Amino acid sequence: MSYCLGIRLDAGLVFLSDSRTNAGIDSVATFRKTFLFDDAEDRVLVLLSAGNLAITQAVITLLTERLAETDTGRSLYGAATMFDAARIVGSVLREVHDQDGDALAAQGVEFAATFILGGQIRGEPMRLFHIYSAGNFIEASRETPYFQIGETKYGKPILERVLRPEMPLLDAAKCGLVSFDSTIRANLSVGAPFDLTICLGDAYTVTMRRTFGAGDAYLERLGRVWGNGLRTLFLTLPNPDWADTLDAAQEAAASTAAEARRAAEA
Amino acid sequence: MSYCLGIRLDAGLVFLSDSRTNAGIDSVATFRKTFLFDDAEDRVLVLLSAGNLAITQAVITLLTERLAETDTGRSLYGAATMFDAARIVGSVLREVHDQDGDALAAQGVEFAATFILGGQIRGEPMRLFHIYSAGNFIEASRETPYFQIGETKYGKPILERVLRPEMPLLDAAKCGLVSFDSTIRANLSVGAPFDLTICLGDAYTVTMRRTFGAGDAYLERLGRVWGNGLRTLFLTLPNPDWADTLDAAQEAAASTAAEARRAAEA
Repeated sequence: MSYCLGIRLDAGLVFLSDSRTNAGIDSVATFRKTFLFDDAEDRVLVLLSAGNLAITQAVITLLTERLAETDTGRSLYGAATMFDAARIVGSVLREVHDQDGDALAAQGVEFAATFILGGQIRGEPMRLFHIYSAGNFIEASRETPYFQIGETKYGKPILERVLRPEMPLLDAAKCGLVSFDSTIRANLSVGAPFDLTICLGDAYTVTMRRTFGAGDAYLERLGRVWGNGLRTLFLTLPNPDWADTLDAAQEAAASTAAEARRAAEA
Repeated sequence: MSYCLGIRLDAGLVFLSDSRTNAGIDSVATFRKTFLFDDAEDRVLVLLSAGNLAITQAVITLLTERLAETDTGRSLYGAATMFDAARIVGSVLREVHDQDGDALAAQGVEFAATFILGGQIRGEPMRLFHIYSAGNFIEASRETPYFQIGETKYGKPILERVLRPEMPLLDAAKCGLVSFDSTIRANLSVGAPFDLTICLGDAYTVTMRRTFGAGDAYLERLGRVWGNGLRTLFLTLPNPDWADTLDAAQEAAASTAAEARRAAEA
């Protein structure tokens, strides 16, 4: 399992990915899920991957091999728009499906690979896409400013409550890290190190990268403050009007029990 | 989809279930997922169901039909222990599988039905079980004092952070309601009304039942206070040591952009 998150804010793009995989014996470092395409001056592209590792690695490899090609329909550095770039990723995914799909199906293995593609190409605003296993895709909007892939559910409530397009990049990064913290507490197949990538609007380069290892001091502090805060917040929640009824029932039960004890002792 | 939750505290048992189903045109009221077996003086049993409605209804019907039987291996009112009661539920589920499993498989429908069974039979402490589609089951412990079935993920983080066996029944009920609030915000297939059932230890009866309809004033207030509290808590989270680096990068980008504007205007 994986967990990746891409957020499109007014100020820029924020990406987070875990690096754990169930594929077995290889080293964790081999399975980073954030891939940067930032060697061209007029653009920055960030690709996050989830799903079958053989499929996602094949897609990344083919995309990378074709960067130098001049065919604008094949090279991410040749694409005129982010929409075209998303189409290239989708079309490479379909190529891998044509190549491996039947063999995987024969083994009962689902063809599962999803991507988040975000970035900016000069002449356009920043854009963010969610690419499905079939190679089709959707784009983020102001109403839905983020996409998740992989193990998305545990970490979703905090995103829904907090993320807004107009919030500062730092806050979105912190919100994403809290979402990852909630996820790793519930699902062991999502794990550190986490890769954080931030791209400012109109910078056409990666503004900041940070990797958070297991036991990272800031991440631990964030999780601790959040957890303690949740418990404190919980204590401030209002009581329902049936709280008294429940109290009375408990008192009645306690006095019945005490009476029974006295009767037994007498 | 469904969402049901059972919690075993030192003081008693707390159960919550939604009542939405994807089965279509019938009325929501038909699809309550909390079933009480509390007509015997020496016991109280509460059963929550999730999964294929035809399967769960068949199980509940057979269990209900057999309550008057004298065979202790078939009647929930005859079972000597909660473990035996869980076995009865599992065995009825296997009966339904024997009856319907092949026909469902032929239609490509998964045989999916899970149950939470909690209660107390005189002579035993309160016990809580999670019964799987295969009819096998596990029991809650002090370390894992709750079970969820159905759409479990969105609502799990708050349970993990807050639930403790020694907490008051009212707090556990509120924690459960917050968990339901998080779930319905993320998954439309989980919905009100919600059934809350509370059983005090050694009472051998249902202590309290409450139903929360869509738009219930307390539930809305709980969700609002929780949501606002989360956003306030979020603002108190510590900043990382790279916050300054990100600030500096944003300032540099802003001044570069201003310079470019001045150059363009000159």
